[in-house]
Amino acid sequence: MNESRLIQLLDDVQAGRLKTADAVRQLKSLGTHHLEFARVDGHRTLRKGFPEVIYCEGKTPIQVVKIARAILANNDNLLATRCAPDIVRALRRAFPKAHHHAEARAVTVTKRALPKRNGIIAVLCAGTTDIPVAEEAAVTADVMGNNVSRFYDVGIAGLHRLLAVNEELLAANVLVVVAGMEGALPSVVSGLVDKPVIAVPTSVGYGASFGGIAALLAMLNSCASGITVVNINNGFGAGYAASLMNRLAEK
Amino acid sequence: MNESRLIQLLDDVQAGRLKTADAVRQLKSLGTHHLEFARVDGHRTLRKGFPEVIYCEGKTPIQVVKIARAILANNDNLLATRCAPDIVRALRRAFPKAHHHAEARAVTVTKRALPKRNGIIAVLCAGTTDIPVAEEAAVTADVMGNNVSRFYDVGIAGLHRLLAVNEELLAANVLVVVAGMEGALPSVVSGLVDKPVIAVPTSVGYGASFGGIAALLAMLNSCASGITVVNINNGFGAGYAASLMNRLAEK
Amino acid sequence: MNESRLIQLLDDVQAGRLKTADAVRQLKSLGTHHLEFARVDGHRTLRKGFPEVIYCEGKTPIQVVKIARAILANNDNLLATRCAPDIVRALRRAFPKAHHHAEARAVTVTKRALPKRNGIIAVLCAGTTDIPVAEEAAVTADVMGNNVSRFYDVGIAGLHRLLAVNEELLAANVLVVVAGMEGALPSVVSGLVDKPVIAVPTSVGYGASFGGIAALLAMLNSCASGITVVNINNGFGAGYAASLMNRLAEK
Amino acid sequence: MNESRLIQLLDDVQAGRLKTADAVRQLKSLGTHHLEFARVDGHRTLRKGFPEVIYCEGKTPIQVVKIARAILANNDNLLATRCAPDIVRALRRAFPKAHHHAEARAVTVTKRALPKRNGIIAVLCAGTTDIPVAEEAAVTADVMGNNVSRFYDVGIAGLHRLLAVNEELLAANVLVVVAGMEGALPSVVSGLVDKPVIAVPTSVGYGASFGGIAALLAMLNSCASGITVVNINNGFGAGYAASLMNRLAEK
Amino acid sequence: MNESRLIQLLDDVQAGRLKTADAVRQLKSLGTHHLEFARVDGHRTLRKGFPEVIYCEGKTPIQVVKIARAILANNDNLLATRCAPDIVRALRRAFPKAHHHAEARAVTVTKRALPKRNGIIAVLCAGTTDIPVAEEAAVTADVMGNNVSRFYDVGIAGLHRLLAVNEELLAANVLVVVAGMEGALPSVVSGLVDKPVIAVPTSVGYGASFGGIAALLAMLNSCASGITVVNINNGFGAGYAASLMNRLAEK
Amino acid sequence: MNESRLIQLLDDVQAGRLKTADAVRQLKSLGTHHLEFARVDGHRTLRKGFPEVIYCEGKTPIQVVKIARAILANNDNLLATRCAPDIVRALRRAFPKAHHHAEARAVTVTKRALPKRNGIIAVLCAGTTDIPVAEEAAVTADVMGNNVSRFYDVGIAGLHRLLAVNEELLAANVLVVVAGMEGALPSVVSGLVDKPVIAVPTSVGYGASFGGIAALLAMLNSCASGITVVNINNGFGAGYAASLMNRLAEK
Amino acid sequence: MNESRLIQLLDDVQAGRLKTADAVRQLKSLGTHHLEFARVDGHRTLRKGFPEVIYCEGKTPIQVVKIARAILANNDNLLATRCAPDIVRALRRAFPKAHHHAEARAVTVTKRALPKRNGIIAVLCAGTTDIPVAEEAAVTADVMGNNVSRFYDVGIAGLHRLLAVNEELLAANVLVVVAGMEGALPSVVSGLVDKPVIAVPTSVGYGASFGGIAALLAMLNSCASGITVVNINNGFGAGYAASLMNRLAEK
Amino acid sequence: MNESRLIQLLDDVQAGRLKTADAVRQLKSLGTHHLEFARVDGHRTLRKGFPEVIYCEGKTPIQVVKIARAILANNDNLLATRCAPDIVRALRRAFPKAHHHAEARAVTVTKRALPKRNGIIAVLCAGTTDIPVAEEAAVTADVMGNNVSRFYDVGIAGLHRLLAVNEELLAANVLVVVAGMEGALPSVVSGLVDKPVIAVPTSVGYGASFGGIAALLAMLNSCASGITVVNINNGFGAGYAASLMNRLAEK
Repeated sequence: MNESRLIQLLDDVQAGRLKTADAVRQLKSLGTHHLEFARVDGHRTLRKGFPEVIYCEGKTPIQVVKIARAILANNDNLLATRCAPDIVRALRRAFPKAHHHAEARAVTVTKRALPKRNGIIAVLCAGTTDIPVAEEAAVTADVMGNNVSRFYDVGIAGLHRLLAVNEELLAANVLVVVAGMEGALPSVVSGLVDKPVIAVPTSVGYGASFGGIAALLAMLNSCASGITVVNINNGFGAGYAASLMNRLAEK
Repeated sequence: MNESRLIQLLDDVQAGRLKTADAVRQLKSLGTHHLEFARVDGHRTLRKGFPEVIYCEGKTPIQVVKIARAILANNDNLLATRCAPDIVRALRRAFPKAHHHAEARAVTVTKRALPKRNGIIAVLCAGTTDIPVAEEAAVTADVMGNNVSRFYDVGIAGLHRLLAVNEELLAANVLVVVAGMEGALPSVVSGLVDKPVIAVPTSVGYGASFGGIAALLAMLNSCASGITVVNINNGFGAGYAASLMNRLAEK
Repeated sequence: MNESRLIQLLDDVQAGRLKTADAVRQLKSLGTHHLEFARVDGHRTLRKGFPEVIYCEGKTPIQVVKIARAILANNDNLLATRCAPDIVRALRRAFPKAHHHAEARAVTVTKRALPKRNGIIAVLCAGTTDIPVAEEAAVTADVMGNNVSRFYDVGIAGLHRLLAVNEELLAANVLVVVAGMEGALPSVVSGLVDKPVIAVPTSVGYGASFGGIAALLAMLNSCASGITVVNINNGFGAGYAASLMNRLAEK
Repeated sequence: MNESRLIQLLDDVQAGRLKTADAVRQLKSLGTHHLEFARVDGHRTLRKGFPEVIYCEGKTPIQVVKIARAILANNDNLLATRCAPDIVRALRRAFPKAHHHAEARAVTVTKRALPKRNGIIAVLCAGTTDIPVAEEAAVTADVMGNNVSRFYDVGIAGLHRLLAVNEELLAANVLVVVAGMEGALPSVVSGLVDKPVIAVPTSVGYGASFGGIAALLAMLNSCASGITVVNINNGFGAGYAASLMNRLAEK
Repeated sequence: MNESRLIQLLDDVQAGRLKTADAVRQLKSLGTHHLEFARVDGHRTLRKGFPEVIYCEGKTPIQVVKIARAILANNDNLLATRCAPDIVRALRRAFPKAHHHAEARAVTVTKRALPKRNGIIAVLCAGTTDIPVAEEAAVTADVMGNNVSRFYDVGIAGLHRLLAVNEELLAANVLVVVAGMEGALPSVVSGLVDKPVIAVPTSVGYGASFGGIAALLAMLNSCASGITVVNINNGFGAGYAASLMNRLAEK
Repeated sequence: MNESRLIQLLDDVQAGRLKTADAVRQLKSLGTHHLEFARVDGHRTLRKGFPEVIYCEGKTPIQVVKIARAILANNDNLLATRCAPDIVRALRRAFPKAHHHAEARAVTVTKRALPKRNGIIAVLCAGTTDIPVAEEAAVTADVMGNNVSRFYDVGIAGLHRLLAVNEELLAANVLVVVAGMEGALPSVVSGLVDKPVIAVPTSVGYGASFGGIAALLAMLNSCASGITVVNINNGFGAGYAASLMNRLAEK
Repeated sequence: MNESRLIQLLDDVQAGRLKTADAVRQLKSLGTHHLEFARVDGHRTLRKGFPEVIYCEGKTPIQVVKIARAILANNDNLLATRCAPDIVRALRRAFPKAHHHAEARAVTVTKRALPKRNGIIAVLCAGTTDIPVAEEAAVTADVMGNNVSRFYDVGIAGLHRLLAVNEELLAANVLVVVAGMEGALPSVVSGLVDKPVIAVPTSVGYGASFGGIAALLAMLNSCASGITVVNINNGFGAGYAASLMNRLAEK
Repeated sequence: MNESRLIQLLDDVQAGRLKTADAVRQLKSLGTHHLEFARVDGHRTLRKGFPEVIYCEGKTPIQVVKIARAILANNDNLLATRCAPDIVRALRRAFPKAHHHAEARAVTVTKRALPKRNGIIAVLCAGTTDIPVAEEAAVTADVMGNNVSRFYDVGIAGLHRLLAVNEELLAANVLVVVAGMEGALPSVVSGLVDKPVIAVPTSVGYGASFGGIAALLAMLNSCASGITVVNINNGFGAGYAASLMNRLAEK
């Protein structure tokens, strides 16, 4: 029930066209209908600053294109993640402006790019095999209007590589730190900076890494303060959360 | 080596009181010694905005008091978490200004309170048994100079309780959401707001809650974007990270 | 906002005492406030047929009594589960009508008992050490207005004990089957009846029973159709769900 | 031994054609042989209201067709679940009336459809990738003689979608709620209705969802009362149990 | 329904005192009643060679004594395992012949000892802390009429200790091998003998032994053929199974 | 060092051809060489009653054939398990007498069959998908000289199927009981017989069966006495152990 | 910042060419730049005695060749592990001296072989399917300048095989012991020698071996002193650590 | 059989006092008896450089003292670990020279201290609560004749503390690195040195540290080469292995 419908109802009561008892019954279900209306009308973009994102795993190319069309009908930007080759092809056929970020396994469609915020989101990763997850975070943050600095292959076995970029890390508002295996990089990074660190465990590793559990546990148990964690391989979630944090600095 | 000591050294070189070779030798150990010294002498306070926090579990009252003295020698504020009764007593004896936050199981000593930032950190929890963890987060955020709004016992089994405070949630910069059992509250909250949500699983529950694992997994797998997660029962970590995020909004 | 308050508002509109615009504003917050109010004022009782139940673990005697008072202010019945001795004492002191179900570790306060439904809920358990959980289910179902038949110590190592009560099992509308160790009883029972079977794993067992995980997994993987499962030791949840199912048969 | 055979035996005894001692010997083996016979000859249909269902995973097309023939020799309906394409083809070749429910990965053969009960079973799912499991539940409930209402893609990240169908949910006798990832939907749904909710975790998700364990644990630990749970992806089991519950409402 | 009751029924049919239809109804429930009767009458002792054993954990002294009385009313022997001190005292008070096997935490009551079989059951354990579990196995096997040889503290870190008793091991019919930590002893023993080896993991160990899981997994994965495994710390189960195996050699 | 070599050495000492000191040095390494000799010379066949068995998984066809040749050079029988098609072909090419047991995925080569023992080993399985594991057990027991009775598809959801073969089960010396899913069959069978029951969990199942862990845990936690357990899908191990047990009955 | 650059800076200060304040700013970042410089310049080879090793899993052939070129530009030796066939081909094409160790799945390129140390590293494995992991350890140790003795297929089910090589094991400085399944070999070996034993669990096994977890846990819980453990299948890590240990004996 | 006994036997043969056949029979049992005897009589000390160590957990004070006496009868040194207060008291009463290492929870009895090796074993730990485990390692290494350097509270959250002792770490032959929580310290240390690093996970931490599993997994998955791992909290094992490694450097 939207506002005009509500006014109509009250007018009907006032005019005696609707009995109090009937109005009571109609109004009892008001709470949800009202919410329903508001949310459907582009509410997510207004509120979150970016429309719904399509997680493509488990969806067919046809489904993805259909959802993409629905989103782009009311929005200027689209982000689709975990795009298998057939989905990339389908999106490209459907949207000439579709851009494939190969390493990130993501596709973006940008009708009008969001203006960039001033603050920087730094994306770090420990090893070269962590790059796809880091890129998913970086592409997500970028398309949501953030400046992104990338620092890849700075794992703790070569501590000097990390220390060498120390000042650039200090310049970032938020740091997304991606690591597999023992997942120690976020702890070390968090000890060097005074900004929120979002740790992303990856499934990189073998044996007792258990598909990323070792890294996930290490990050959850970090002795360094200020770290929060997202799901294994969830580069998108990290980029999204980093963008929400970086947006705080805008105000 | 602090900054004044460094200036002195360079002045000595300039004035010819110190030979280049000797200065080289002294400076070679500067990196760590400087950092080392600086950190002991308030460096952490400068960088992180708050001195080292004492996690009391596994420490004796004597150890805690000793560390507390060392911190308070150079800082205006102290936070000690997970304080058992004997540690509370010891801290109170040692520091007349010690304040015991009973529900949070925390002790603070405040020589000069930090000025409060404008932004609000909202702390929510699902049930009454989650309150100790929520309070640890709230006390941490408070002592670090943040305004904190508390919304307790707003679990999803009574969704209306949550919806009733919807507008107040929207007013916060960062939301710390604490829940045990199935840990669904952060997902629902994140769907209602456009700010970073820090999810804190608690060990509240029984049977297959496995001391908080059920809630932890639920939070890591949230379908709502913008959630990051800390360790089970880690109210301190959530409050600390929330403070770092809220500080971004200051600038 | 309760119903009489709502009628008042509409009457005010109809009588011209309240302007449409003002009524709109008041009604916009109706959804949650109305729900909020309604739930506190017996809404849960109306909808679920029984007021909120107090899970006492992790609550102090004072907290429990306070919640109990709030519930009994508007309801005829109270159920408190997992009551430690000090909570039992506190409830007894506060409510002369409090009845302690020792084996079930539950306390009920009955101002006016609910009328009994015709259908029967059968509660079975495999061994004598499973009885506390079974009793929690039985007491829950009983206080919610169901006739309960108990069949205890009918584990599958003595299959004849189970087969001997076959006809009585067939007479039940719903069966709650409680078992620890290998948790096979629900599968066998479900093969004998044509009614919903609610399986309750218990933490009874040792070694690789892992506090009930073995039984839980067995029940989730049952080869017999028609079984659903609740959490380890969750007798209350089983009794509650059984009551909802049995209520279907009333209509 | 079926009933007519038993009557014959007793008639023979009464008529003196069979000696008591011989009848005793024959009857001693009655328990199992009688059961055995009865079960093969429609006993399951009589008792459970539906014949044996074929779970096709791990069976060859030839095996499936053979079992299907045996079932259809004595029954009007057949349900085969988890049908790979080669099994679908084999069933279609063997039974012209075979109907393939593609999304549910199920095949039904209906010689004479069961009459529909009045009560409604609502099947909800959180995301589009949960639909195969939801459809398996829906098809199972449908073929067993129930009216089924489907509410798909109503996950809690868009709470308004769920609230919008609130009244239709209240109209159902039983609700099957399917969700992967953090598995929070059943808790929220159960807070809105007063009917049994059967929660079905799915393996949808990645990283720390562990093939559905996260959702399973969330559902087992739900803070909302009245929820029971089936195995991961077990849409069939949920539909079957829902049908048993809905049948209670018939009486 | 016992045999005489069955004959009576058939006689009634033959004599026309019972109608065929009524007899059919009574006979339909025959299967279970017949089984019921046979099992109740001392059937377990006849079949298994030893009466029911009381697992005392989770039972009160009163319950244990009551069950013990019921068993001893019809049997010559009693075995109670996992006896806490209060249960030992209660059994001793109730049964003057009660014998407490302190290391095994077991109590036996022997009115007439079972005759000993010729074959030997060897019980080995790796370390001194495994002895309670080994003794539970040894006492169980002994009370069930077996000759038992004990070989304790023969862990693989001192291989010579094991090799020194090689010939005595070869003389046994069955070997129960108890070990905690890495649980490797059964594999080594099985490589030395040609008889069934029952492996018993114990919860002895620390850290990543996980309460016996490490030993359990090692035993299940043994590269040596002929090993079967019982639950962690389940000395009783091993002794019982060993006795069943050793009884085969009697015939 | 074999016996003749030892006599030679002692003769050399006696004759003065070898100094005591030299003999001491040579004899110090005697322990292992002596063992070495005995074992190499057909010792396993003598002791275990059957030569080494080839577990083919992870071995190349060439490796398998080579090991097979080595075994058959000194033995009359060969058993190879887990044979992939290429290994079956290779064994058939190499040994004209090779017999492929397709369901058991095993190959046997029998130059002279072992004489059959009198006792019977019963092999049961719960469902049709458990048959490959059951057959591996049956073929193993058969080739090792045992009479094997098979009882397949007697799962507990159709208890009458099991009760129908009760007497045949009582005739067996040892019972191998194979089951996946909730793994309850061994418990039920063990309650019916007085012989050793070897439980074999299978990886049959889905969702929370976790590749056989649910069944494994159920079997380890069986409330029925006399059950021992082997690894998931380890039909061979069960058949081998059953043969060792059945051989006890020979003596 | 290297040393000459530092001297220059101080000279500039002394000469008045650089202001103290500016020098302070430059020196503040000294610590890391200094480290950075040192490490880039061949530091790893100097320090560890061997250049970086390429772990090829998850890398493309092009990436591997590129990294290999970079390493060989400054080093005499290259080791690449876990080489899939396409990577082997790419390395062979790129480096004529590339040598493929097929069983170890490794490629080495040796421009000038390292001189061999005197001490021996013994590499043992339990079964033939463990050989690839054992060979990875052996090749790693060999290329790093160690003499390697191989003892394969000496699992504990045939203890004599191990005892037969006892003296050769005693001759080694370090022992790498590789085993899957129950992982007991390192415990037994460690009981025979007085040197460091590095245990390597492999994923060889099935069922409850859980991809090597059973072996890993057994090794971590070894009752024999002096064992340390590496990750599942991590032959490289074991060979590398063994080389570091053996190098100690050189000095 | 000890060496003098062996010489006697051979002399008897040479002198004709013992027949060859009789000598053969006696020598056949030599392997184990000889080993048995040798081991009891100081063999372990000869081979391992230190007598058996008493792990006191799960042993009574009487048992510990008895074993201690047996060891000290033939050895100069004793090490008892995990000593509860009552065991400490018992050892002190029994052995006046007993020395209690309170932080290490260990007792040593030193009749004649072992001479110290030249090489240094460095023991590091991350936090103050890790000290008991680090001390157990340090005391073990010390009593076995090694020089030990301690570096405590050098966790990675304060990287400068570690870098400050970099040169001292480089001076050690072996490094034992103890850490709980995320267990990242060994990785960072191993990146700084070229010596074997033994990583010791501790159970320090909470929530998802799972009693040390998080740290254990991190260490097993370390991206730095040259790390080997011992069991959780196994300071003794680390100290023992470190001593074996350091002893290599002696030769």
